[in-house]
Amino acid sequence: MHRTTPLVAAVDIGGTKIAGALVAPDGTLTARTQRPTPAREDGATVLAAVLEVVDALRAEPEWSRVAALGIGSAGPVDASRGTVSPVNIPGWRDFPLVPGVDKHLGEQGGAAVPPIVLVGDGPAIAAAEHWQGAARGSANSLCMVVSTGVGGGLVLGGALYSGPTGNAGHIGHISVDLDGAECPCGSRGCVEVLASGPAIARRALAEGWVPPGRDATAAAVAEAAKGGDPIARASFERAGQALAAGIAATATLVEIDRVVIGGGVARAGEVLFEPLRRRLADYAVLPFVHGIEVRPAELGTDAGIVGAAAAAAHAVGADGWG
Amino acid sequence: MHRTTPLVAAVDIGGTKIAGALVAPDGTLTARTQRPTPAREDGATVLAAVLEVVDALRAEPEWSRVAALGIGSAGPVDASRGTVSPVNIPGWRDFPLVPGVDKHLGEQGGAAVPPIVLVGDGPAIAAAEHWQGAARGSANSLCMVVSTGVGGGLVLGGALYSGPTGNAGHIGHISVDLDGAECPCGSRGCVEVLASGPAIARRALAEGWVPPGRDATAAAVAEAAKGGDPIARASFERAGQALAAGIAATATLVEIDRVVIGGGVARAGEVLFEPLRRRLADYAVLPFVHGIEVRPAELGTDAGIVGAAAAAAHAVGADGWG
Repeated sequence: MHRTTPLVAAVDIGGTKIAGALVAPDGTLTARTQRPTPAREDGATVLAAVLEVVDALRAEPEWSRVAALGIGSAGPVDASRGTVSPVNIPGWRDFPLVPGVDKHLGEQGGAAVPPIVLVGDGPAIAAAEHWQGAARGSANSLCMVVSTGVGGGLVLGGALYSGPTGNAGHIGHISVDLDGAECPCGSRGCVEVLASGPAIARRALAEGWVPPGRDATAAAVAEAAKGGDPIARASFERAGQALAAGIAATATLVEIDRVVIGGGVARAGEVLFEPLRRRLADYAVLPFVHGIEVRPAELGTDAGIVGAAAAAAHAVGADGWG
Repeated sequence: MHRTTPLVAAVDIGGTKIAGALVAPDGTLTARTQRPTPAREDGATVLAAVLEVVDALRAEPEWSRVAALGIGSAGPVDASRGTVSPVNIPGWRDFPLVPGVDKHLGEQGGAAVPPIVLVGDGPAIAAAEHWQGAARGSANSLCMVVSTGVGGGLVLGGALYSGPTGNAGHIGHISVDLDGAECPCGSRGCVEVLASGPAIARRALAEGWVPPGRDATAAAVAEAAKGGDPIARASFERAGQALAAGIAATATLVEIDRVVIGGGVARAGEVLFEPLRRRLADYAVLPFVHGIEVRPAELGTDAGIVGAAAAAAHAVGADGWG
């Protein structure tokens, strides 16, 4: 990499950790740094942890080559105002994250403050999978995370589509069961309330599944399902059905031809993917949504950083970033 | 209008009629023509009716100023291949409509054959309402028709988003009730199966509503609901709920801030709009989907023609078409 090629600094803010790195146009990550998220603390304390990560990046000699700072955050976000309201960080409600980081960098003096680009974590992961992962080569795809929650992002017409406020692709909170169970978001029958890891575990326990020891997680349900436990299999079947209905709805609305699924629950593999593919054929029936490809995600825990970098590089038109 | 300003020829193909006109950049329609759709006949017979409409436009002296021919058709369509498979025209399945029209025009000699742009009827209506109707000034909106069926189209980032095959915005066939009733499309719990005019009438009759005379249509249910009939009101409430869940899903996936609703069922007015708005507040709860505006459509039966013209003008970059 030529030493004048612009780098992008990226920060990924989740409910458990805040990670940062400098990212090169070939996807190389350097200067990795990480802090635990003080998710139960007040907003200023969470911001201080973010600023520690930013300062660690700023201390790198290559900071002078940074063309943009991409921030991917647990959502919802408001990219138009630079504010965030992550469900799992209660101290941040309409919290002015971008202004806070911008002010801090301005106060440090030295190099010019790079433009800061905020995006939701779902769109960030979509940008990452489209750049380097399982959505490469697909002009219209949905990239999802199925984990403690269910999130997603969209690639439309060959580019990340994050919407006016950076939240597009929020598939976890579309209702596929209009009379269904209340969701913590306030709606009912959301994909997340049927298909998240906690939902899978809760449903199996309610139906009489007996966890081995204390591990009553979706991962333990997945192990039981692999061993043939019918209650465990039924719980994954229901999750697959809900995901299928949500994916089919997305495809019917915006014409995607590929869906990429990552996150802890997706690591269950065929226990989830087999019913999901089968049910998708039931819900995605119109000719233009036939044959949607379902692929496991290829990027791991770096997806948030990689995607925040890609989104920021494209937003500012950084040289050498394709 | 300067006499060298490009016009666009437009044809709107529905299950009951095929309408055509020449459209000027100020939205003026001239040379209107119309034929009944021989919807129960074979594919060649339906095509012949379309060609009669096209030939009537071709016979106009202003045909020489035509920069494009826009065709809006009942869907699904495949704009990438120029084929159509309208649910309500059984003789057309993967029917090569654009090649058929193109071949016919080529055989007539005379003026050069204009480029032909195919789009689904939902996206056509969205283009029309965005250009001249209730979606003006909204960069991100969903325009719907609630009638015998339920259709829609999307405006994203200030422009029509019709997707790679011209079908985006197909809200009638997203499932909001994953265990619900089978839909003729093959899926279950689709918005259309809960909210179309026939669904509203069927549900009211099943619950014991007694139609006045022989008119057991959604319009008669709407009259009964206005008169306070609780069964009739409940049927519209359920339709409003299903539409609300579908609209909220769309907003959550692509961030729309306005929804425009037309079609025969929408003419029921507040009997539909009141429960729809109330239920929308239940399903559209995340901060970025709060406060979606719900407006009645402003264009009437010309929307399909106007929208096909707008979509074609933009696709070919016709001069003077904004």
